[in-house]
Amino acid sequence: MKIAIFQFAPRFAQVEANLQKIEHAVQGVDFDLLILPELCTTGYQFVSHEEVVELAEAIPEGPTTERLTRLAREKSAHIVASLAEKEGEQLYNSAALVGPEGLVGKYRKLHLFDEEKLFFNRGNLGLPVWDIGTAKIGLLICFDWIFPEAARTLALKGADVLCQPANLILPYCQDAMVTRALENRVFTVTANRVGAEARGGKPQLVFTGKSQVVAPNGERLVQFSEREERLRVVEIHPEAARDKWITPRNHLFEERRPDAYTV
Amino acid sequence: MKIAIFQFAPRFAQVEANLQKIEHAVQGVDFDLLILPELCTTGYQFVSHEEVVELAEAIPEGPTTERLTRLAREKSAHIVASLAEKEGEQLYNSAALVGPEGLVGKYRKLHLFDEEKLFFNRGNLGLPVWDIGTAKIGLLICFDWIFPEAARTLALKGADVLCQPANLILPYCQDAMVTRALENRVFTVTANRVGAEARGGKPQLVFTGKSQVVAPNGERLVQFSEREERLRVVEIHPEAARDKWITPRNHLFEERRPDAYTV
Repeated sequence: MKIAIFQFAPRFAQVEANLQKIEHAVQGVDFDLLILPELCTTGYQFVSHEEVVELAEAIPEGPTTERLTRLAREKSAHIVASLAEKEGEQLYNSAALVGPEGLVGKYRKLHLFDEEKLFFNRGNLGLPVWDIGTAKIGLLICFDWIFPEAARTLALKGADVLCQPANLILPYCQDAMVTRALENRVFTVTANRVGAEARGGKPQLVFTGKSQVVAPNGERLVQFSEREERLRVVEIHPEAARDKWITPRNHLFEERRPDAYTV
Repeated sequence: MKIAIFQFAPRFAQVEANLQKIEHAVQGVDFDLLILPELCTTGYQFVSHEEVVELAEAIPEGPTTERLTRLAREKSAHIVASLAEKEGEQLYNSAALVGPEGLVGKYRKLHLFDEEKLFFNRGNLGLPVWDIGTAKIGLLICFDWIFPEAARTLALKGADVLCQPANLILPYCQDAMVTRALENRVFTVTANRVGAEARGGKPQLVFTGKSQVVAPNGERLVQFSEREERLRVVEIHPEAARDKWITPRNHLFEERRPDAYTV
C-alpha cells in the first residue's frame, strides 16, 4: 500500500489556490492513500466567526469534497483532507475521507486546541474506522495526539493506519506518535503543514513540519524536514499492524487490564 | 523534593550483597525518595519455580522490607524497591513503597513480560496512589509502560510522580515515558538496571540503563548513560504536576471524551 503525504503551507482563505497546489503535487504520482494537513484548503488561524462561516463547507455537499472526489477518482485512490465543515449553523474542524465514489466518511475533531474553541464545536461523531480495501484506517486531527485514548480506541476498533492531519506548532507530537505506534502496533501517519500565519494582530504561528510515517515497531519510515514543501510516498504493509503479539507470550490487546484501569 | 535513582547491576540471587550495595550507594546522600530497579535484590532471569520460591519474600513480613525500612528511617526518606514477592503459594513481581515507619503500600505488576509469566502471577492490587507528604506517587514496573492506561489511571487518581523500577532490554521505553509525562502532566521516574544476565543456558539479556527523570512538560531532568552504575539525585517540584492546564483553554483531564473512547 502506497501512502502519500503532501506537506505544504496552505495560503489562508485561498481555497482554489490550495486545491490547485494539491492537484499539481500529485501529478504523475502513484499512491493508494494521500494524507493532507489540517484545514488544508482554508488555512488555520481564523480570527472571526464570520470568516469560518464563509470558508467552511458542507461535507460531502460542498465543492471541495466534490473536487477531492474527482482527484481520488483520477488517481484510483483515497484522500484524507481536513476541512472546516459547516452543517447548518454548526461548525467543525473535520477530516473527510474520500474515494473514487465520493465521501467514505468524516471525522470531527474531538479535542479542540486553544482558540479553535472560539470557532468550532467539539466533534460529535466519535472515532470511526473505515475499511478502504487496502487497509482499515482511522483519523485523528492534530491535538488529538495528546489523548492516548483516541489512538487506542481506533486501534481497538481494528484500524491498521492512523492518519493524522496536523497544524502542529509544538515539537512533541512527532515523537509521541512513535509511542502511539508502538503501544497500539499500528502505522501512524502525520501530515503536518509548514510555513507561518499571523492574522488580525495575533501572535505568529510557525508550523513545525516533520511529517512522518511510523511503523508498528516504532520505526520511522520517513520523516520530512521542518520546512520543505514536498510530497513523498512510502510503501507500507498494513498486515503488520494486525499482529498484536509483541513476544511469543505477550498480546498487546488481550493483556490489557480494564479491571484496574480508570477511564 | 529530592528524587534519587540508583542505577546498578544486581547480582543474581545475591540478596545480601545487593542490599549492601544499595546501602553503600546512599551513604552521605540526602534524598526524599529513592527509586531502585526492578527485582533489585534478586536479579531478573529466574529459570525455575523453585528458584523464585526460594528468593521471594513476604512483603512486609520478609527481611528485605525490614532492612529497607531501617534504611528509610535512617535517611528520613521513602524507598521504592521492586522485589519478588511470596504470599502463601502465590508469587508476584512487586514493588514495595517503604518509609520510616515501615511499608506504606505495595504494587503488583499488572502486565508481565514474556517469561515472567512462567514464574509470577499477574498483579491483583490495581494501581494504587499514595501520599507520602512530599508528593503523591504511583508505581509502574517496567513493561507496564506500554499500556497507556496504566500511567493514565495513576494520573487520574492524582499521582504527581510515576515511579518505574525497570529491567528494560529494549530501547523504546525511555522515550515513551516522555510521552507519558506529557500526556498526563506528571513526573516520570524510570530506574532501570544495567549489566547482563545469562542463566540456565538462556539467551543473554543485556539491560539498557538510561534511567531518567522527566518533568510534566516533557523535559528530561536527568538521564543516565547505558552502562554506568551510579546514584544521582534530582530536585523536582511536584506541584508542577497538579496544573493540568496546557493552554489557557485546555485542561488535559477535563477535556477527555470518554463518550467516544473504547476501553
